Amino acid sequence: MSAPLSQIVIFGASGDLTARKLVPALVGNAHDGAFPGPVQVVGVSRRLLGDDEWRSDLASWIPAAHEQAWEQLAPHIHYVAADTGRPEDVARLAQWLDDAARERGCEPARAGRLFYLALKPSLFGPSVRSLDAAGLLDCAPGATVGWRRVVVEKPFGHDLPSAQALNADLLAHLREDQILRIDHYLGKETVQNILAFRFQNAIFEPLWNRNHVESVEITVAETVGVEGGRAGYYDTAGALRDMVQNHVLQVLALVAMEPPTTMRADDVRDEKVQVLRALQPFSVEGVARDVVRARYVAGPGREVNYADEPGVPPGSTTETYVAIRAAVRNWRWNGVPFFLRTGKALAKRYTEVVLRFHTPPVDLLGGPVDGDFCALRPNALRLLIQPHEGIRLGFQVKQPGPGSVMVPAELGFDYDDLPHGKETAPAYQRLLLDALKGNATLFIRGDEVEAAWRFADSVRAGWAHEPPPPVREYAAGSMGPAEADDLFRGCEGTWGRG
Amino acid sequence: MSAPLSQIVIFGASGDLTARKLVPALVGNAHDGAFPGPVQVVGVSRRLLGDDEWRSDLASWIPAAHEQAWEQLAPHIHYVAADTGRPEDVARLAQWLDDAARERGCEPARAGRLFYLALKPSLFGPSVRSLDAAGLLDCAPGATVGWRRVVVEKPFGHDLPSAQALNADLLAHLREDQILRIDHYLGKETVQNILAFRFQNAIFEPLWNRNHVESVEITVAETVGVEGGRAGYYDTAGALRDMVQNHVLQVLALVAMEPPTTMRADDVRDEKVQVLRALQPFSVEGVARDVVRARYVAGPGREVNYADEPGVPPGSTTETYVAIRAAVRNWRWNGVPFFLRTGKALAKRYTEVVLRFHTPPVDLLGGPVDGDFCALRPNALRLLIQPHEGIRLGFQVKQPGPGSVMVPAELGFDYDDLPHGKETAPAYQRLLLDALKGNATLFIRGDEVEAAWRFADSVRAGWAHEPPPPVREYAAGSMGPAEADDLFRGCEGTWGRG
Repeated sequence: MSAPLSQIVIFGASGDLTARKLVPALVGNAHDGAFPGPVQVVGVSRRLLGDDEWRSDLASWIPAAHEQAWEQLAPHIHYVAADTGRPEDVARLAQWLDDAARERGCEPARAGRLFYLALKPSLFGPSVRSLDAAGLLDCAPGATVGWRRVVVEKPFGHDLPSAQALNADLLAHLREDQILRIDHYLGKETVQNILAFRFQNAIFEPLWNRNHVESVEITVAETVGVEGGRAGYYDTAGALRDMVQNHVLQVLALVAMEPPTTMRADDVRDEKVQVLRALQPFSVEGVARDVVRARYVAGPGREVNYADEPGVPPGSTTETYVAIRAAVRNWRWNGVPFFLRTGKALAKRYTEVVLRFHTPPVDLLGGPVDGDFCALRPNALRLLIQPHEGIRLGFQVKQPGPGSVMVPAELGFDYDDLPHGKETAPAYQRLLLDALKGNATLFIRGDEVEAAWRFADSVRAGWAHEPPPPVREYAAGSMGPAEADDLFRGCEGTWGRG
Repeated sequence: MSAPLSQIVIFGASGDLTARKLVPALVGNAHDGAFPGPVQVVGVSRRLLGDDEWRSDLASWIPAAHEQAWEQLAPHIHYVAADTGRPEDVARLAQWLDDAARERGCEPARAGRLFYLALKPSLFGPSVRSLDAAGLLDCAPGATVGWRRVVVEKPFGHDLPSAQALNADLLAHLREDQILRIDHYLGKETVQNILAFRFQNAIFEPLWNRNHVESVEITVAETVGVEGGRAGYYDTAGALRDMVQNHVLQVLALVAMEPPTTMRADDVRDEKVQVLRALQPFSVEGVARDVVRARYVAGPGREVNYADEPGVPPGSTTETYVAIRAAVRNWRWNGVPFFLRTGKALAKRYTEVVLRFHTPPVDLLGGPVDGDFCALRPNALRLLIQPHEGIRLGFQVKQPGPGSVMVPAELGFDYDDLPHGKETAPAYQRLLLDALKGNATLFIRGDEVEAAWRFADSVRAGWAHEPPPPVREYAAGSMGPAEADDLFRGCEGTWGRG
């Protein structure tokens, strides 16, 4: 038996995200026949638009392969002009939703309702207040019929106090289990595969700790600069807040977490938040020693200095690159450096996680017991996340021949090679489906957001200290500033090359 | 500075092995410029031949690519007709060697001498007795100049008492460090790579024990039957003695051994013999339960029953296939079954080692905690030895898409893909070079041979018991008798498919 009607209400319907990502993701799910039951999509914004007008705005973003699904879904896509800050508008929306549910033969109290806040963060609080006032958020805990949920887009605050305030605003009107904070990185197939890889195989977990792992690297490298007029927003955020606090730390949490008891949302998130809380916040001296911030100057990758991008205010010190030597101070990881880096206008676009393992205790084939162990490169496991999705396990083999020359080799696997593999669904498609089904595993809980901000804020506090640590430079099209290499010490090797 | 002259004396010079393997291996080493110094090759047998005659016999086995090396080496290849059982013949050989050394400008006392016994086992004892009587085996322990070594071909005995007698015969005239018992399987690059793979990487060894490994399989499968008149000899041996006692158990020892202190011969062989001694000999009941013997009958792989092969005596019960569920009763392996099998006229020719790992403790993505763990296939590491050389690590990945369907995948590596890889040297080429250099690591020590016979003899004792356990049948061209599958029990899976 299929589920009752789901009503998907998108606030911020006239924005880019809605047309480019959200509606195509919904059509993708329709194409896959993935919805648990009938759906109705309602766009809401202040702009005056008719259903047909909005539909034709949306149609241009639908890929040809989904044409048929679009034509089936389009009659169930509607537009309601309303100002979410005005209680009378929201009351009218409530009435509209009830009527629309009845027209589809569904008792309004049985329809599930997903409110997607594709809005500026400053509107999150007022919106839920209006929704609550109109009675649109009332449902029993864990309801599977007549449920009411709210999806909140990033950024979720800009520091710990603002995130705490935002959480307080939401929790005044919603239970935590009704709130779905989205980080589209968690919708990526290969990010989810980190958990599957770790916990559906018995051979990696025994190695996955300080006894065997020398260091962990997480690199999220972008080739784009701040083109297209994004510099104005970007300059208020920077790489630390735009990428590290959310995407990079979410990947870190999945890589470093303990095995959860089950894959249910709170079991997974309980373990993730433990890791984020174990991330050692920096002292001012720690930031100077273990964090490198930088911004791009004109180079082969881009013709203009970041400082000269249109929209960047004079005197800005915002970083477009950050590299961090972080510490996770728990039983499993203490003493293992976590090398995190992300940046714009870099040489190569890729995301990967690298676990470097200790060297063998003795070099039996290669040389003397007191030999140069830096030369005997450690084994490394690379989890390739994008653009190419796969796994690489570096190890040493003997070069064929009479001697004992060891050469590096890789055991490799590419997700593309999977037999009968379906096309990977875009992140939003996966996450919207999870939201409808009430599966919150891939959404961020309030305490995770706050723990991540606590770490990011400690870096910003170091940067705010006088005299401030330098903002380094790197040529656009390089892999970042040379100073970032110095975060690796002694025999620890260096950054991967993607 | 290059080493003094090495004189390589091959007893059994007119035999197949000499022409097909030994001399081409020497020419291969000449081609590679691998010899430590000048060499002289002396063929010895009773047949009357001149140098040129013998050379032209040999020339036809030299590959065209080694033509130039052959032409350089040929003038240093000689033939001496002699009966190694006759002291006066061997005394004449001794004189010949002294003269030949002087002609090459080398004091005979400084020349190294390698006596290769490519002879029937019954001639090993008499030959070393003659060599000793002629003073040809005298050298200081560990001598690197003026050394004297003897290479002994397999089979080394046909049971424990005969092997002990043979060892006693040799040790009456030689020290153990002068004896090089050859098993050409150990000259194979990928067999040696087992050690490099295990001990030059830090990530496999932590998993390499009973805590993580569920079972170990070693399969040496041949497609050939006993063609070419070999049945007469083969029927006196059978699969257990022809393959298991030597090749299979040698591979087992390399897979299961503790890390040696160094790669020096006795450090490695001390650890190997520990494993062979830990191999639990069978009781009569154990053989009935854990060993399957069989022979082929006509099938898609061969048109004739083994019993009807020319040369097989009536009433023979010799096995052409054996499968064993063995136990290594030591700290590392107790409780881990070692599945060993080898056979002729099988569907596929290949040698591989499979380590199957335990299932994950819980099935987080796939189902309930008390689910069917047999269905969650364990991880497996496959060491491919021949004909294809490589490594495969089986693991589980999530099938792309919204569900949590796990599918098997493999991390793979092929030695062929090594950059700058030289062509792999044939086993005899490697082993002859090691023999000249005095590196005995890849040769079998007397105590290893005896320990392996102790195990093999326990199987034969079970077969000799009345009433004898059945000799199963399998169709030529199949992978052996169905009964062998029953050696895997409960959730242990089954034989690999190569």
